[in-house]
Amino acid sequence: MTRADGRTDDDLRPVTITRGFQKHPAGSVLVEFGDTKVLCAASVTEGVPRWRKGSGLGWLTAEYAMLPSATNTRSDRESVRGRIGGRTHEISRLIGRSLRACIDLAALGENTIALDCDVIQADGGTRTAAITGAYVALADAVTWLGAQGALADPKPLSCQVAAVSVGVVDGRVRLDLPYEEDSRAEVDANVVATDTGTLIEVQSTGEGATFTRSTLDSMLDIALAGIRKLSDLQAEVLAQPYPRDLPGRS
Amino acid sequence: MTRADGRTDDDLRPVTITRGFQKHPAGSVLVEFGDTKVLCAASVTEGVPRWRKGSGLGWLTAEYAMLPSATNTRSDRESVRGRIGGRTHEISRLIGRSLRACIDLAALGENTIALDCDVIQADGGTRTAAITGAYVALADAVTWLGAQGALADPKPLSCQVAAVSVGVVDGRVRLDLPYEEDSRAEVDANVVATDTGTLIEVQSTGEGATFTRSTLDSMLDIALAGIRKLSDLQAEVLAQPYPRDLPGRS
Amino acid sequence: MTRADGRTDDDLRPVTITRGFQKHPAGSVLVEFGDTKVLCAASVTEGVPRWRKGSGLGWLTAEYAMLPSATNTRSDRESVRGRIGGRTHEISRLIGRSLRACIDLAALGENTIALDCDVIQADGGTRTAAITGAYVALADAVTWLGAQGALADPKPLSCQVAAVSVGVVDGRVRLDLPYEEDSRAEVDANVVATDTGTLIEVQSTGEGATFTRSTLDSMLDIALAGIRKLSDLQAEVLAQPYPRDLPGRS
Amino acid sequence: MTRADGRTDDDLRPVTITRGFQKHPAGSVLVEFGDTKVLCAASVTEGVPRWRKGSGLGWLTAEYAMLPSATNTRSDRESVRGRIGGRTHEISRLIGRSLRACIDLAALGENTIALDCDVIQADGGTRTAAITGAYVALADAVTWLGAQGALADPKPLSCQVAAVSVGVVDGRVRLDLPYEEDSRAEVDANVVATDTGTLIEVQSTGEGATFTRSTLDSMLDIALAGIRKLSDLQAEVLAQPYPRDLPGRS
Amino acid sequence: MTRADGRTDDDLRPVTITRGFQKHPAGSVLVEFGDTKVLCAASVTEGVPRWRKGSGLGWLTAEYAMLPSATNTRSDRESVRGRIGGRTHEISRLIGRSLRACIDLAALGENTIALDCDVIQADGGTRTAAITGAYVALADAVTWLGAQGALADPKPLSCQVAAVSVGVVDGRVRLDLPYEEDSRAEVDANVVATDTGTLIEVQSTGEGATFTRSTLDSMLDIALAGIRKLSDLQAEVLAQPYPRDLPGRS
Amino acid sequence: MTRADGRTDDDLRPVTITRGFQKHPAGSVLVEFGDTKVLCAASVTEGVPRWRKGSGLGWLTAEYAMLPSATNTRSDRESVRGRIGGRTHEISRLIGRSLRACIDLAALGENTIALDCDVIQADGGTRTAAITGAYVALADAVTWLGAQGALADPKPLSCQVAAVSVGVVDGRVRLDLPYEEDSRAEVDANVVATDTGTLIEVQSTGEGATFTRSTLDSMLDIALAGIRKLSDLQAEVLAQPYPRDLPGRS
Repeated sequence: MTRADGRTDDDLRPVTITRGFQKHPAGSVLVEFGDTKVLCAASVTEGVPRWRKGSGLGWLTAEYAMLPSATNTRSDRESVRGRIGGRTHEISRLIGRSLRACIDLAALGENTIALDCDVIQADGGTRTAAITGAYVALADAVTWLGAQGALADPKPLSCQVAAVSVGVVDGRVRLDLPYEEDSRAEVDANVVATDTGTLIEVQSTGEGATFTRSTLDSMLDIALAGIRKLSDLQAEVLAQPYPRDLPGRS
Repeated sequence: MTRADGRTDDDLRPVTITRGFQKHPAGSVLVEFGDTKVLCAASVTEGVPRWRKGSGLGWLTAEYAMLPSATNTRSDRESVRGRIGGRTHEISRLIGRSLRACIDLAALGENTIALDCDVIQADGGTRTAAITGAYVALADAVTWLGAQGALADPKPLSCQVAAVSVGVVDGRVRLDLPYEEDSRAEVDANVVATDTGTLIEVQSTGEGATFTRSTLDSMLDIALAGIRKLSDLQAEVLAQPYPRDLPGRS
Repeated sequence: MTRADGRTDDDLRPVTITRGFQKHPAGSVLVEFGDTKVLCAASVTEGVPRWRKGSGLGWLTAEYAMLPSATNTRSDRESVRGRIGGRTHEISRLIGRSLRACIDLAALGENTIALDCDVIQADGGTRTAAITGAYVALADAVTWLGAQGALADPKPLSCQVAAVSVGVVDGRVRLDLPYEEDSRAEVDANVVATDTGTLIEVQSTGEGATFTRSTLDSMLDIALAGIRKLSDLQAEVLAQPYPRDLPGRS
Repeated sequence: MTRADGRTDDDLRPVTITRGFQKHPAGSVLVEFGDTKVLCAASVTEGVPRWRKGSGLGWLTAEYAMLPSATNTRSDRESVRGRIGGRTHEISRLIGRSLRACIDLAALGENTIALDCDVIQADGGTRTAAITGAYVALADAVTWLGAQGALADPKPLSCQVAAVSVGVVDGRVRLDLPYEEDSRAEVDANVVATDTGTLIEVQSTGEGATFTRSTLDSMLDIALAGIRKLSDLQAEVLAQPYPRDLPGRS
Repeated sequence: MTRADGRTDDDLRPVTITRGFQKHPAGSVLVEFGDTKVLCAASVTEGVPRWRKGSGLGWLTAEYAMLPSATNTRSDRESVRGRIGGRTHEISRLIGRSLRACIDLAALGENTIALDCDVIQADGGTRTAAITGAYVALADAVTWLGAQGALADPKPLSCQVAAVSVGVVDGRVRLDLPYEEDSRAEVDANVVATDTGTLIEVQSTGEGATFTRSTLDSMLDIALAGIRKLSDLQAEVLAQPYPRDLPGRS
Repeated sequence: MTRADGRTDDDLRPVTITRGFQKHPAGSVLVEFGDTKVLCAASVTEGVPRWRKGSGLGWLTAEYAMLPSATNTRSDRESVRGRIGGRTHEISRLIGRSLRACIDLAALGENTIALDCDVIQADGGTRTAAITGAYVALADAVTWLGAQGALADPKPLSCQVAAVSVGVVDGRVRLDLPYEEDSRAEVDANVVATDTGTLIEVQSTGEGATFTRSTLDSMLDIALAGIRKLSDLQAEVLAQPYPRDLPGRS
């Protein structure tokens, strides 16, 4: 029994990661999980938030947003409504927390890396695609900082970070849900992990249903297998040179 | 090796649940997990949000907030800042989702139950205390609705809901973290489950660290044991009569 | 002709003042005027608002709020609406002004005392209960500051401050109106005064009616008599020791 | 001992009331108390706020604001800051309450009169000047409504409303304080009353000081004498015909 | 074929400029273009916006607003809605940009001139009247600064600035449109220029229509002729002495 | 004397227009003017704004925004700041007005087309690129509506709309300014016109400078020549079939 798009339960959708998508930020990546497309930019700015000043440590922050035209029916613009919604807040915090797990902030000095994850097209799994793409943008920003001689430690990234969604649909545990499956999933989980398979974040929710520990175990099994593939792709993509000229150290 | 407050790793703090704390809402509960004190009120209002009108279904919503004086150093009032913070948004959504897992909203007709969880004093685990207390307030509100003859189904609650925090502190998996432990935990999880031990929500986060699946398993083991005790306490407390006069059915 | 709750026109409702209600703030008081319950916390923070910096003077500020579950029908949360309402603003300003009348701000140095008055349950007279309780919380915060050796003048409080409502209901001048009377009062006044009976603030309003000077005089008579009793209770309660360990001066 | 501007303690400043200041609103009055100048407009709009719909009753609302250029040093624009300040809220509510005391809202049908009081130049007493001018604008709006045949009761105004400030400056009770006196007053009161001398609102505040009942009595004495003069002036001004062509009843 | 108010196509409405309208700001002008009345105040404040600090240069900013009672039907107050509308933003920016074209900001040192243009009564052309009046208020503020010895360059104004609207109504190009014409114009332009006829800003818009270059040329012809008359009036008015006592240089 | 990028003064940058960029909106276009890239989406929604209900007419609205990562240094997110800035407001209004000039809104019935113009990468001329691309997205949305049988008039677009920037840089009138030229231009104009060369909007501004009518004429000459080329490109691109399957008329 295959899925509507022909995948088996533990298949990822086709995933592509395009570096150098924009010219201004130090890292800029377009990540695609099937029809889900997220633009992940890593911008370096001098200074840190007020509560961190004088610590000698850097900071990493993330903001997630959705273009109004990204969804099936147009969604209102949060800037026009004058407020960030709860879902946006929650995902922005998840992305920031996930990526901070892999970086030594002391190496940055008092500089901030801002990760902007803007969803260009949504078809399920936007937050996990965002995390997976943001790691690559972050790696490029770190390379850029290194080329400027701005890093205290030349290798501040201790691991790779990737994420994938998993859920129970039609009674079956399935990987990387598109919107059509996500909207009717009984259980839904987002898993963030490193390239060595240790966990960074697990968020598993029954959507009007409850679930057993063995379901959770099955979901984690196929999620971690999916993350292994995503990590391999990240590594492969990052094996290519930095997509633009790097700043000199003159 | 015991903890600063003398507990073993899998002990809960002393937990008390006081029903009938306020006179206006249909359910009003003060829940205490050690020094953490949360006031959980369940108010019934006629009507449902616009997007649900005409469905014949009820709704359950939750709002979490912290008194400025609840924390170690005074925190700013979100009403004065003019915005709900990301953490507040996230916890409010978690509470609502968790409690919706146990209720048949069709039984309410087009009425809304609002769960207000206001932290009077914070010492770690405020969101899990809130969920545990909110269940009891919700049960009272359902009793109140039933006494009015306002329920389509006399038993709209399909299970009990309780929650507890668990984390890795000093290299050990520990249950129900007070602030002193929470603030230095390497891994932190919040687990929501039913009285029969099936899961509703698992949120597990490495705080600047990663964690293995076996750590996640240990955390779930002691969390589910703790939730069993909390469920027993909820049942015991709810075995007492409704704390005020019930409305008649005239 | 007695009132619905059996009181005579110039009786207060039963009043209780509980010190040490919360563990974090320097002063924390639960004040009850009948079914009206207000939590008054006095938190000490370093520094003063920008416009006062460099003056060498301290500051005292107050914020009043109502829990959504405090009222007969649930009220919206101002943090969610993104704005403080006019009534909230007005009462917060009244409380701050009233308490500043009794304190020598120079004695605090450039520190701020924030008085948070959160209504747990509302049954008329919340603002006057808040002022009466806030004075006791303030006195405790001053004791706490003194124990730290942080006061330039050991006795910065020049008088006690208490407040009570009074109004014309059913053509009779009555003290300390519960909601049931307040909502149909023709004239309504809030009086703030010291323990020696001098006035700090008088706010008297015709609610769709006008009133004569002799009515105002009668209202002031019974209000001041009520305030005398409240002052006595404050003094009695404060005669007990500070409810927790005081900080040492090491 | 006279005051800086040559007045005796119980003198008003020169007061002028100019009707028909703007061409659009049904009532538009420029009121001047010395250098304090407030533009009071009464606009009639169809319909009432949502909570009043279906009642058959009209509504009267008021908004007070200050031009940035009205004060000694430029004040920020509240629209730019995105929030109404506490003082603005408080005064808007006072004006609305005061004018509602004199009008039979049933006579308006479900229509609203909005009173906009915009301070063009501030020199103390802006709220009392606003109330005094707003009454005249309201009277013109009522005339305008009557000419349209839109009133259920031809005389919906039961009394005149005027207001004045009074305070203790240099130890003396003085009427109608300009900014120079107001800013150093020990006690400050605003009194709103009718043309027959009954009270509508009394707000009396010790500014870092307390005051006795006999001081309050003296303040009320001279305030009521001042209000009598203001009422006479209102009557005199309103004895002139409506300042523009009235709508016909065709 | 004359216009409803008897003017020919290239006539201005009667224009008056009254200096010294308010006593607090350094420059305060009431400008009237027919029934359009705008109060333009120029306030001097110490310091410049953050992004300009340390530059040694001054700044000039402008804010435009409309009294709720200024328009035919009452408009909502932007402070109450909590947001500045797009039209307000746009006009504020236009006024600031236009006036900055005539002033040498280096001469001010690190001081800011704020131009507040508040529409008292609207009848078309409020933005062009505002610019024309703001120039005169600015000139007075510069005189005031000069009298204080606060100018690095005694003549920081390099030219006069004035503005007028022009449009196509009933197929004819007409100058200075009142609301009655503006609301049905097919094309609408606002032109800002100097007293020597060079352009500062041209904004020309087809309102649901398009227009040819020859129409644009005709509009510019009569607009520049109108601006010449406005510049003459500005010069004439400014030939009178500063309307109040100037600060001495002691 | 050529420009930094090798163009002559009246050359456009390389322009590309890619239809069908997103799958959800009825029209979705990526427009590139050199390194400036704007995503223009046209979404059809049922209903019209409240003030237009019952008119039988449709509506067209536009919102412009910039990704934080689009600019040379990261810009703050307006949703996080909680306000739309003045520049954003101004450009959104310009785009909406420009596109409304070419469409018969009666043909839409009571439906709204929302044009979202999100800048992916900014290098000068974002608003003119947005208008040029938005026209193509609009044309696709109209085709989509026609395929659904939802148009009262089969050809509601009366003309094409395109726009280009022009300015005076280094004393020379130049077309389509990149950021490097725009940031130091003495005069800056944006011109919106139809494919037949009639004007829709002209906005010309001296940036701290003034300009003569002959400069304006030169700017209009080369702008209109540029718009002719843009119109040709739009027509060529739209000669291709609709980029996805059209909805049937079943």
